Amino acid sequence: MFKSIALPIALLGAFATASADEGQWQPHQLPQLKSELKRIGITIPAEKLADLTKHPMSAIVSLGGCSASFVSGDGLVVTNHHCAYDAVQRNSTAENNYIVNGFLAKTRGAELPAGPNARVYVTDKVENVSERVLKGLSASMSGRERHEEVESRVKALIAECETDKMYRCSVPAFHRGLEYYRIRQMMVRDVRLVYAPSDKIGNYGGDIDNYEWPRHTGDFAFLRAYVGKDGRPADPSPDNVPYKSKDFLVVSAEGLKVGDPILLAGYPGRTSRYKLPAEIRFAREFTFPRGVTEITADLATIAAAVAGKPALEVRYASVAKSRSNVLKKTQGLLDGFARKDIAAVKDVQDAEFRAWYARQAGKGANSKTLLAELDAVIAADMALSQEEFAWAVASNSDLLKSARSMYRLAFEGQKPDAKRESGFQARDLSFIKARMNRLEQSYDRGVDQARFAAGLNRYAKLAAAMHPPGVDAALPAADALASMYAQSELGDTAKRLAWVGKDVAAFTASDDPFIKLAVKLSDATMALENRRKEIDGNLERVIPQYMAAVIAWKKTQGKPVYPDANSTLRVTYGTVAPYSPRDGLSKGPFTTVDGIVEKHTGVDPFIAPKTLLDAVKGKQYGVFKDPVLGTVPVNFLSSADTTGGNSGSAIVNKRGELVGLNFDSTYESITKDFYFDPTITRAIHVDIRYMLWVMQEVDHADNLLKEMSIRYPRK
Amino acid sequence: MFKSIALPIALLGAFATASADEGQWQPHQLPQLKSELKRIGITIPAEKLADLTKHPMSAIVSLGGCSASFVSGDGLVVTNHHCAYDAVQRNSTAENNYIVNGFLAKTRGAELPAGPNARVYVTDKVENVSERVLKGLSASMSGRERHEEVESRVKALIAECETDKMYRCSVPAFHRGLEYYRIRQMMVRDVRLVYAPSDKIGNYGGDIDNYEWPRHTGDFAFLRAYVGKDGRPADPSPDNVPYKSKDFLVVSAEGLKVGDPILLAGYPGRTSRYKLPAEIRFAREFTFPRGVTEITADLATIAAAVAGKPALEVRYASVAKSRSNVLKKTQGLLDGFARKDIAAVKDVQDAEFRAWYARQAGKGANSKTLLAELDAVIAADMALSQEEFAWAVASNSDLLKSARSMYRLAFEGQKPDAKRESGFQARDLSFIKARMNRLEQSYDRGVDQARFAAGLNRYAKLAAAMHPPGVDAALPAADALASMYAQSELGDTAKRLAWVGKDVAAFTASDDPFIKLAVKLSDATMALENRRKEIDGNLERVIPQYMAAVIAWKKTQGKPVYPDANSTLRVTYGTVAPYSPRDGLSKGPFTTVDGIVEKHTGVDPFIAPKTLLDAVKGKQYGVFKDPVLGTVPVNFLSSADTTGGNSGSAIVNKRGELVGLNFDSTYESITKDFYFDPTITRAIHVDIRYMLWVMQEVDHADNLLKEMSIRYPRK
Repeated sequence: MFKSIALPIALLGAFATASADEGQWQPHQLPQLKSELKRIGITIPAEKLADLTKHPMSAIVSLGGCSASFVSGDGLVVTNHHCAYDAVQRNSTAENNYIVNGFLAKTRGAELPAGPNARVYVTDKVENVSERVLKGLSASMSGRERHEEVESRVKALIAECETDKMYRCSVPAFHRGLEYYRIRQMMVRDVRLVYAPSDKIGNYGGDIDNYEWPRHTGDFAFLRAYVGKDGRPADPSPDNVPYKSKDFLVVSAEGLKVGDPILLAGYPGRTSRYKLPAEIRFAREFTFPRGVTEITADLATIAAAVAGKPALEVRYASVAKSRSNVLKKTQGLLDGFARKDIAAVKDVQDAEFRAWYARQAGKGANSKTLLAELDAVIAADMALSQEEFAWAVASNSDLLKSARSMYRLAFEGQKPDAKRESGFQARDLSFIKARMNRLEQSYDRGVDQARFAAGLNRYAKLAAAMHPPGVDAALPAADALASMYAQSELGDTAKRLAWVGKDVAAFTASDDPFIKLAVKLSDATMALENRRKEIDGNLERVIPQYMAAVIAWKKTQGKPVYPDANSTLRVTYGTVAPYSPRDGLSKGPFTTVDGIVEKHTGVDPFIAPKTLLDAVKGKQYGVFKDPVLGTVPVNFLSSADTTGGNSGSAIVNKRGELVGLNFDSTYESITKDFYFDPTITRAIHVDIRYMLWVMQEVDHADNLLKEMSIRYPRK
Repeated sequence: MFKSIALPIALLGAFATASADEGQWQPHQLPQLKSELKRIGITIPAEKLADLTKHPMSAIVSLGGCSASFVSGDGLVVTNHHCAYDAVQRNSTAENNYIVNGFLAKTRGAELPAGPNARVYVTDKVENVSERVLKGLSASMSGRERHEEVESRVKALIAECETDKMYRCSVPAFHRGLEYYRIRQMMVRDVRLVYAPSDKIGNYGGDIDNYEWPRHTGDFAFLRAYVGKDGRPADPSPDNVPYKSKDFLVVSAEGLKVGDPILLAGYPGRTSRYKLPAEIRFAREFTFPRGVTEITADLATIAAAVAGKPALEVRYASVAKSRSNVLKKTQGLLDGFARKDIAAVKDVQDAEFRAWYARQAGKGANSKTLLAELDAVIAADMALSQEEFAWAVASNSDLLKSARSMYRLAFEGQKPDAKRESGFQARDLSFIKARMNRLEQSYDRGVDQARFAAGLNRYAKLAAAMHPPGVDAALPAADALASMYAQSELGDTAKRLAWVGKDVAAFTASDDPFIKLAVKLSDATMALENRRKEIDGNLERVIPQYMAAVIAWKKTQGKPVYPDANSTLRVTYGTVAPYSPRDGLSKGPFTTVDGIVEKHTGVDPFIAPKTLLDAVKGKQYGVFKDPVLGTVPVNFLSSADTTGGNSGSAIVNKRGELVGLNFDSTYESITKDFYFDPTITRAIHVDIRYMLWVMQEVDHADNLLKEMSIRYPRK
């Protein structure tokens, strides 16, 4: 959904030049890149790649946040270990610790439920609905009116699409609102865990190696999609049967070598390649440094609050891990922006574009108006972003977030479903309930209180201009928090869930301090939200005109323009390639099983299983030995253009056979969300030969090796 | 000299297999390697390389500790910046800080004296004198008798050679005493500083980059050899004239690329490639860890003693730097031995050799005797090494060392010159005086007292068995040190120098506490020395038989055997090659001037001169731009076999033209002194194109560029 994935800073800006291996392309754009694909050696016809109903694109699926692909006709799905981690964790017990020992279902009957939130989304239809979203919007509308009208049309398009309950639909914006596509996905909701190696393989190197190269992570796992006997998605049930995937990828154990072409297909989440120089500077000088300070402070608060309490340490481990990951990424952005002056690069591009635009016949006056408006809207957006940041600092409490979310549900419930705010419609109810339920896994009263108190304290120190109107008066005093937490019943899962679906009257009548706080904050936060809508509406009006001009400009140079990532299916291509992070140093493109032995210290996260170490020492490479490396490859680098959400994406060779799984990027690549520097941007993949070798030599997953169609190298 | 360069642990052991680019070859051995040289692409005939009187070998010189080469017919010598550092430092003043600003003599008259200890040694004759050293030595001699007889013959051979005072001669042992060669070198003693770049170029990266790659050090400088008008070496004088070098290297600016062959000629100091497994284990378990502990403790003592006293910090800076360098090297040895079980590798080689040796007809009984004797002598050597280590800990005082050295000179002075201990003959007197004089640059009473006291304290804690007999009784009590230092006159340079040449009676009559201590310790240390001679004599008897067997064994495999380095002229060959320190990572083989800009932080040691930075930013590459790199190369790696002493060694291309200067090795290569691992051993060189580029673009050393014969690339 457009709104639900919007960032505090609206996404717009300069533009990226599609060069080298840059570009997360909509499948239908691929025929425009025919000569590029041919140049690097891809033999699958571009027209075939453009058709979502045909091989290989019909084998590519989303797990919602991760990417994956079918590898058998019986709904077998391969993805990353970290994408299946929840499923492994939820099935693990002290006796059967599948995290440490790995899990392999030797029969279909032994496959385990992946959990109530596990999904497999199979995209089956993509329609250009730009006209239905945009036709007749009046220039005289206020930003907010325009925004709400677009939202309303989008909701209607979704509702129309979801009349058949087997589908989940969305209407994301492309090119910042220049185009809208309606995406229809079959949503499979009975997903089972089939096989995951030990995290000594699947997460070898752990947080230390996160974003790093050399890498030796076997980040792969298998799930299976189950449907009702009628072939339609169904709630989890023992009666369900494996989904008959009409398409799947053939696996190639023939391997790749340096310079070989690859295609990567998946669901990249979000990029910001078209930001203007002013926005880049704002990110560098405000967003990233503030983000680092804020997360660092929050992590310190959590660490202090859980110290010496092992049960709390475990409960907040995943929160801390996820915050640390964002911190490392934000720090990487800061480092990258310090290393390369991306704003200066954008300055040059922006000046070139503006010069071209001013030269367009009859556009002189128009161009001035458009570009002046653009700059003004962006300035307003950046100003509001500072207040939104402050509000996020002030409201750093899971209990408050829960209360606000449930009150908002009641508030929206007063309207007809189609008029409700996106995210609070009937179709969203099950997700809200799941969230309210899941909170218990990572919530503790004392820790939440400490985080809220520390956040309020940091908020109080922010410049007065950053405090959104009305918020200060509604916020509690720091010394009131202890009794508020003591009195609130929302920390109790059953009692919290009971509030889902209650009406506004129930909320306003409540004595619960957090319900009261949510109600009290409502006016101020709603005002903030409406100011955001006003700005978003203005952005949505101005940016598409700007993007249309950029696309026209690029067309004069013979260059197609890809839209920023928005969690929809994209294809990127590249080659297996090393890179030089520093003068005199070269990284990749391959690591090998010998490197696992080299890194093994016996201390977490560098504990490789003994069977694996023995297999390496015994040189049991089988057919997976690379002729150049002389051993089994583990991970490799490519120049493909990826971002978060591409985890688990299939890497296919020139013939469309599965040769790897995407799972990370190098530290130097982190800035690619803003600027793609082909010399240092590299994605990190699992070599499929390592996966097959582990399945054969370490875990003996013979049943799965048999189920997949594997092309082995000629002897 | 054999004795003067002996290490605490006698040098002997297993053996190295000459494979890949391993081998520091005596020039006369090169014809045996004809096919190897041809294979890598060297076109100079091996016979030519074997002749020291012919080009290019006659252009290769020693500076005593460093290597260098003539690059013009007027005695112009090129070497490393760090080899000319003393000369730069001694001529620097606060007004003319040549260290920081660099120094360039635009005319011959502006060239500065390099200092009284500066030498250029031109090797002009090498004779095999094995028979004269070894003939008629009786198997019934004790170890000490044998050792002293060999020493005596060596001294006679030297004296005979040095009748012409223009020569300095030596008779080092090769293959652990299997062969002896007499080396005659013309010793030039008027050496002048011609040109050294700023240490911001010559020592860019400083201690941080020491032993590291990527490297960006312009480690080059120029000296000139001056002689009397008669063409013979003379004391420094304004009347002297540049030495007419009969040979010199042509410089090639054509450059190298990955895989190109190179030859490296110079004076490597010391290697231990033929150690037995037992000795490797002793080094790993005793020598290196004890060395690390001892140096770390001494450095801490120095740091505490000079803290807050800038004058003392400066005075001990070079001592601390040199100790730190040894510490880093010793730590590197420990790390390397931990990474690779070199003892286990040697075990396999040793077992193969012993099996072969036992199979030799009629050798059954002999072999048993020889190998049993070998093991016994080595065991005795290791035991004695522990006492020698303890003695070094106990005597960690420069004042004591000076007193002992001068007393020994008096003691030896009682004998005819030919009978005196090597190092204390008439020919050594000027060196001893220079040492006694130089001490004032790096001596302070308080610091020396602190180091002596701390050493005595550490010595007291060593196992009793390690204390050499008689030493404990002669050592002073810790609380006596303060008054000893207060009373001794040896801290005064003039008074210290006055003791050089006094007779034994003067020493025994002295009241100076340090003279008294030296006399008192004399019996115990002489006893220790005599036990060393006994063991060395036994080693010298057994090891050559063992080495002869090893050489015979290697001959059956068609492999020539090179002797360990011993500061004599050697040639090694290799190729320009990267290496992989870890799986998935590749280093080198080139760095470029862009990397200098990348590393430049403005904080020492990463301050590049502005003129250099501007030249890089302006892409003023001139003819020195590498066609592959697209910029000017700075340093490069090769697989050549080097060690300490090879600093400044000429790197020549297949035609014998100068293309680089050796100056360091990578950290992973440190273990090569014991075991040459061709996959990770790399030497670090200055690319001559960088030197020429700096001379042209940064320092405008046009006069030198004109003086040298430079072959520029074809346009």
